[in-house]
Amino acid sequence: MEKKAAIGVDIGGGSVKFGLVTSSGRVLERGQFPTNPRGGKKLLFDQLVGQLRSLISGAEARRIKVAGVGLGAPGPIDVERGFVYFFPNIPGWKNTPIRAELERALRRPVFVDNDANGVALAEFLYGAGKGMRNLIALTLGTGVGGGLVLNGRLFHGEAFSAAEIGHIVLDEKGSRCSCGNRGCLETYVGSGYFTAKVRRRLAAGAKSILSRWLKEGRELTPRLVAEAAQKKDRFAILLWEETGERLGTALAGLANVLNPDRIILGGGIAQNGSMIFDPVIRTLRKKAFPIAARSVKVVPAALGPESGFIGAAAQVFVSNH
Amino acid sequence: MEKKAAIGVDIGGGSVKFGLVTSSGRVLERGQFPTNPRGGKKLLFDQLVGQLRSLISGAEARRIKVAGVGLGAPGPIDVERGFVYFFPNIPGWKNTPIRAELERALRRPVFVDNDANGVALAEFLYGAGKGMRNLIALTLGTGVGGGLVLNGRLFHGEAFSAAEIGHIVLDEKGSRCSCGNRGCLETYVGSGYFTAKVRRRLAAGAKSILSRWLKEGRELTPRLVAEAAQKKDRFAILLWEETGERLGTALAGLANVLNPDRIILGGGIAQNGSMIFDPVIRTLRKKAFPIAARSVKVVPAALGPESGFIGAAAQVFVSNH
Repeated sequence: MEKKAAIGVDIGGGSVKFGLVTSSGRVLERGQFPTNPRGGKKLLFDQLVGQLRSLISGAEARRIKVAGVGLGAPGPIDVERGFVYFFPNIPGWKNTPIRAELERALRRPVFVDNDANGVALAEFLYGAGKGMRNLIALTLGTGVGGGLVLNGRLFHGEAFSAAEIGHIVLDEKGSRCSCGNRGCLETYVGSGYFTAKVRRRLAAGAKSILSRWLKEGRELTPRLVAEAAQKKDRFAILLWEETGERLGTALAGLANVLNPDRIILGGGIAQNGSMIFDPVIRTLRKKAFPIAARSVKVVPAALGPESGFIGAAAQVFVSNH
Repeated sequence: MEKKAAIGVDIGGGSVKFGLVTSSGRVLERGQFPTNPRGGKKLLFDQLVGQLRSLISGAEARRIKVAGVGLGAPGPIDVERGFVYFFPNIPGWKNTPIRAELERALRRPVFVDNDANGVALAEFLYGAGKGMRNLIALTLGTGVGGGLVLNGRLFHGEAFSAAEIGHIVLDEKGSRCSCGNRGCLETYVGSGYFTAKVRRRLAAGAKSILSRWLKEGRELTPRLVAEAAQKKDRFAILLWEETGERLGTALAGLANVLNPDRIILGGGIAQNGSMIFDPVIRTLRKKAFPIAARSVKVVPAALGPESGFIGAAAQVFVSNH
């Protein structure tokens, strides 16, 4: 019998990543191209269709049946209708019936979901959440992406906008968030806010090896702050403590509300091992209810940067719609 | 054909309420007796069994088949095993296999769930959440009880401790909560915290008609503060505003995470109409993401103090287990 696979597409602000993925999450082929946000919708759509057509015909030449295409969308969508409301970082996609357009172009069933939901689905099926029933997956990047698997299925909420975990308010008097509120989780763990805080504190006179490194022309990233902490830089160590505690407080609240068995942390900020995980877990254990705290393990994402398209492809194989 | 009904029992710290309820939520009979927490488990259990036996035999004499008994438990339980971990306000129930014990005594299938989940289920099936798919039900009393219906079913979480909404942290530097954290939602809307705050502010010199009423010997309750606000007492009006805003902030975060179609507020604090609902809804609209804010209506609970046993009985008719 011929093999079966699905195509997953992860549309990011910088690049479009895609791959041919089996129902057990194995990536058979992969590709990517730059998003070029200024090129407009038509350019991106045509590029995508071109790439996917050649991926499909290549697969079929190898007797791999392409069962469908799953899309991870970087913005609010209607999952049931396969309809894009808009993409905050890619102009030109307002009110696009993307499923219908892609199905017409590719003659394959197309599924669309939020990109962070795709990551949650991938980790649930193939990664750090395998075998679990209730999980929260967070991707800590520029923003905070969230996805929920509840009772073994992706949870979308009433208008498919559930899991906006980055905008839980931790301090009503905190820093202004891009969403208009103050003190959202994102203002503590979003990488832009994080590095801006470092700059602010260094400018205010904080002592740190980071000042020298920045003068030497190194780029300020969460990774650089992690490097400083590894070199026992006290300023950097305390910053990670503080960041982990804020995240731990938010996760304690979520654990009390959802009582999950896994919380999975991915993205740049999460890639600093015990530096971030230790204060997160310590704070969660302290602040969540004992039953909720005991139920849950906080673990790093297992699938890395391909989880976006792997989870997008997985939509084809599960029936969440 | 004979009629079918179930018995619901709502075990509270002050009284045990119970009733015979049809599958459409109609209460055919009702009763209650004082809990007498000091009497120990055996007294309460024997009283309960006695009352329920006579309710069952009375029903059967009227040719009403009693399909089972549902229990609303005031503390953490294992829903699947029908096992009570403990009741915070009623000593003697530690590690009780209540389902097995009641099934033996009553020879009927018994179901056990958290009392706040029962309220959520009752409002979902027969009350303010009828016809909805995703709802959050909050009971604002001494503490804050929460229940979640997600995708049309009660959501329990991994260890049946989901929906502890009262302990979402709103201000990490806020007042100390009974759970050990600071600034939990409960410290703003729990009735004890609420009246303690009023006392503190009056003692610190705040001007209000409440000072006179208290001197006249009236009891300080949320209702009395509501009465003051109705009389245009500025202190009381601002207090409701503030309380509603805090609750609205918490609900905005929940709406972002769960994207529900209804948020249902019951209990003492919620029984003050627009005084509390206006600032709640205004804050929610302002602080939740537009899609989440548009999806949700915040409404008062419809079923009143019988919702506990009505929802407990409803467990018998739905298959959430």
